[in-house]
Amino acid sequence: MKSILIKDIYRNTDKYAGQTVTIEGWIRTLRASKAFGFIEVNDGSFLKNIQIVFEEGLENFVEISKLSISTSIRVEGKLEVTPNAKQPFEIKATNIVVEGSSDNDYPLQKKRHSFEFLREIAHLRPRSNTFSAVFRIRSLTAFAIHKFFQEKGFVYTHTPVITASDAEGAGEMFRLTTLDAKNPPVDEHGNVDFTKDFFGKEAHLTVSGQLQGEAYALAFRNIYTFGPTFRAENSNTARHASEFWMIEPEMAFADLNDNMEMAEEMLKYIINYVLENAPEEMEFFNSFVDKGLLDRLNNVVASDFGRVTYTEAIELLKKSGENFEYPVEWGSDLQTEHERYLTEKVFKKPLFVTDYPKDIKAFYMKLNEDGKTVAAMDLLVPGIGEIIGGSQREDKLDLLEERMDATGLDKEEYWWYLELRKYGSTRHAGYGLGFERAIMYLTGMTNIRDVISFPRTPKSAEF
Amino acid sequence: MKSILIKDIYRNTDKYAGQTVTIEGWIRTLRASKAFGFIEVNDGSFLKNIQIVFEEGLENFVEISKLSISTSIRVEGKLEVTPNAKQPFEIKATNIVVEGSSDNDYPLQKKRHSFEFLREIAHLRPRSNTFSAVFRIRSLTAFAIHKFFQEKGFVYTHTPVITASDAEGAGEMFRLTTLDAKNPPVDEHGNVDFTKDFFGKEAHLTVSGQLQGEAYALAFRNIYTFGPTFRAENSNTARHASEFWMIEPEMAFADLNDNMEMAEEMLKYIINYVLENAPEEMEFFNSFVDKGLLDRLNNVVASDFGRVTYTEAIELLKKSGENFEYPVEWGSDLQTEHERYLTEKVFKKPLFVTDYPKDIKAFYMKLNEDGKTVAAMDLLVPGIGEIIGGSQREDKLDLLEERMDATGLDKEEYWWYLELRKYGSTRHAGYGLGFERAIMYLTGMTNIRDVISFPRTPKSAEF
Repeated sequence: MKSILIKDIYRNTDKYAGQTVTIEGWIRTLRASKAFGFIEVNDGSFLKNIQIVFEEGLENFVEISKLSISTSIRVEGKLEVTPNAKQPFEIKATNIVVEGSSDNDYPLQKKRHSFEFLREIAHLRPRSNTFSAVFRIRSLTAFAIHKFFQEKGFVYTHTPVITASDAEGAGEMFRLTTLDAKNPPVDEHGNVDFTKDFFGKEAHLTVSGQLQGEAYALAFRNIYTFGPTFRAENSNTARHASEFWMIEPEMAFADLNDNMEMAEEMLKYIINYVLENAPEEMEFFNSFVDKGLLDRLNNVVASDFGRVTYTEAIELLKKSGENFEYPVEWGSDLQTEHERYLTEKVFKKPLFVTDYPKDIKAFYMKLNEDGKTVAAMDLLVPGIGEIIGGSQREDKLDLLEERMDATGLDKEEYWWYLELRKYGSTRHAGYGLGFERAIMYLTGMTNIRDVISFPRTPKSAEF
Repeated sequence: MKSILIKDIYRNTDKYAGQTVTIEGWIRTLRASKAFGFIEVNDGSFLKNIQIVFEEGLENFVEISKLSISTSIRVEGKLEVTPNAKQPFEIKATNIVVEGSSDNDYPLQKKRHSFEFLREIAHLRPRSNTFSAVFRIRSLTAFAIHKFFQEKGFVYTHTPVITASDAEGAGEMFRLTTLDAKNPPVDEHGNVDFTKDFFGKEAHLTVSGQLQGEAYALAFRNIYTFGPTFRAENSNTARHASEFWMIEPEMAFADLNDNMEMAEEMLKYIINYVLENAPEEMEFFNSFVDKGLLDRLNNVVASDFGRVTYTEAIELLKKSGENFEYPVEWGSDLQTEHERYLTEKVFKKPLFVTDYPKDIKAFYMKLNEDGKTVAAMDLLVPGIGEIIGGSQREDKLDLLEERMDATGLDKEEYWWYLELRKYGSTRHAGYGLGFERAIMYLTGMTNIRDVISFPRTPKSAEF
């Protein structure tokens, strides 16, 4: 008899009530007397366990009574609805087969473990309630993002991970190579001869798929990327990882306003999707991880996001009377303390800050008519700060070349990016959503290491 | 007035017929007389163009008449259904705005270009019909895969791209590093001191997410990965790229038979999805790229896939009377010529070959009771050969350790993978689908470089 998912029983209880069912999963708890016992089984399909009742009539009753936590078992029995009990139903076992035993030193015993400890057993932590919920939400969120863009006809574009250029003209990058580490080939000047490397030149891991995404937007009109990106920054914070996933939509025939509308609609869509499709997990986070989570998310869905220019934001911060650690000055970037003050204290909802000084933003952002600011946008959310960054792109060839010269970029290397401005350039815009930051925002988890299956950070690439 | 997608007009013609609409896109063709002209506009949302009629009444009639191919324009006008014409409808323009001009040296003029030439302008080739169709199919296929697994409750797991181990114990890998290329730090023995590297040890790009996927399957029961994988193989063939995407489902409480059923169901689902959601593109490939494509795909959807053991397959090949280039011998791997003979000549449909000799398969595959073969499966399809490879995994700790010793793998490094067999091991199985091979199979494209936006191959990482 084929086994069914425990989630399926929770969602379609009427269908299975009174029927003989087979489930498979891992023991979460077991208590037994001489005559009968109870097992809570979880199969990973759902946050909740299913209760198994077994009695001495079972031929392997004694063996079953002594099983360890995490043993994998197969249970056949009748599903009985238990309207007066704590759990909504239970399975009266007629047959229990042990599939794999579990050693007694199993590290996930039934007690609370610190997140720090659980990171050391990243191969086992998804068997705990918290991480089971985190990674189910992560999966659903990824799908919600695909669904959102696909329903709008956006083309999912896989931009390359390996790159010979640096999209931001800034980020610290990992070099990848097949050259001998100790004795690399050298050229006549004694420098490492990268023409002998695998790609015939120095190659790195991408920090953004945006530039290639622009090429595709100028063919398909609307595209999005969803892939891993990398930073070789030596920063050990709760918000930085060396490997993380990004979503980067790019739209032709779209300006900064269209960009903000899309970002707002997307974020609300994602929130609604997880609230509807994982209500138990979201309740769990609200109860055990972040008490205000559901209120905050419901507020976001119901709000029209605020909009303020950078120049107005600077005025608001100056007038605030707050004692900020970093000074507030037109021309300096906003710090997290500034961002959180604006979104949490002033607007009390998500907030787009737009039109930043050109000198603190990337070369590809469209110069505004004032000649001083660019059509950039950052979306700030309460509790986190920046979650989305984007801009309208510079579509005029001469202005783009000026900015590349000013920032010291090699125009030769970007020949193809410049050509996009020669052959039917249009206004276009896009943004980047850091996927892990979105998951932190949706779950209330506060360390990025706890929303990545096997996180990569400085000095850490275990598993 | 907000512009609408050309695909929207094709799909909902009745809604827009007789209405004033605004579209935006790029000129594909333009011909004009003194009194009127026709423009074919494509906006990337659809394979087909929309025809614009413009007349001398337009104030910028002369300017419009002279526009170059690939100019981006915005057109307002009335949508008129044209039942007697070649095209189903056209827009009678009342206003045409030029958004971005196109230089006369635009390389994609209206003539057939070789795929080789188009690879050199990978930033522009998605503007051609063929590549527009390829990358729209690629996007739809990716979504179909997500949809298939999500509807079954599989958890999408992002396994790490950066790894300090080698999943296959074999593949050639890219090393990634932030050490100085010319003067790396050395230890007391004069060897490169990787403890000083970013991750504190030698790190590489993953060749597979399977091992980490197994850890997650033993928590969530059913998971899948969908991410980029890498091979630093110096092979310049039409079927190999250095960077490609893989889908790797992994199922606990599943054996080889369940694995084959899932792979068959998935492949049929994907084919049906693209046939239903991109009929125009699929007709295009059938007409211009691969004449037998639709017949072949329809045959796959209608067939029960064949199944044969490796040992039986060897017998069939020996009896075939064919003059193969590579000898057929029990214990040797099947070559593409053997695979294609089996699937194209003998079975004439997709074929699972199972239970290969253990010595030609990976260490993690489950040893069969005969002690000589493992519970492996390869799915062969007509026209391509192998498209999916998978296995039931060795779930017994002692047998797995034996195989690791025999293949010279360091058990210390795999401590966490071995622990999965200590704490509630279960039968489990999974497979890998090379995403690009799937796209080639669905479109009839024969070079992997033509189904990857910006392909990475030896000596080539342009764009």
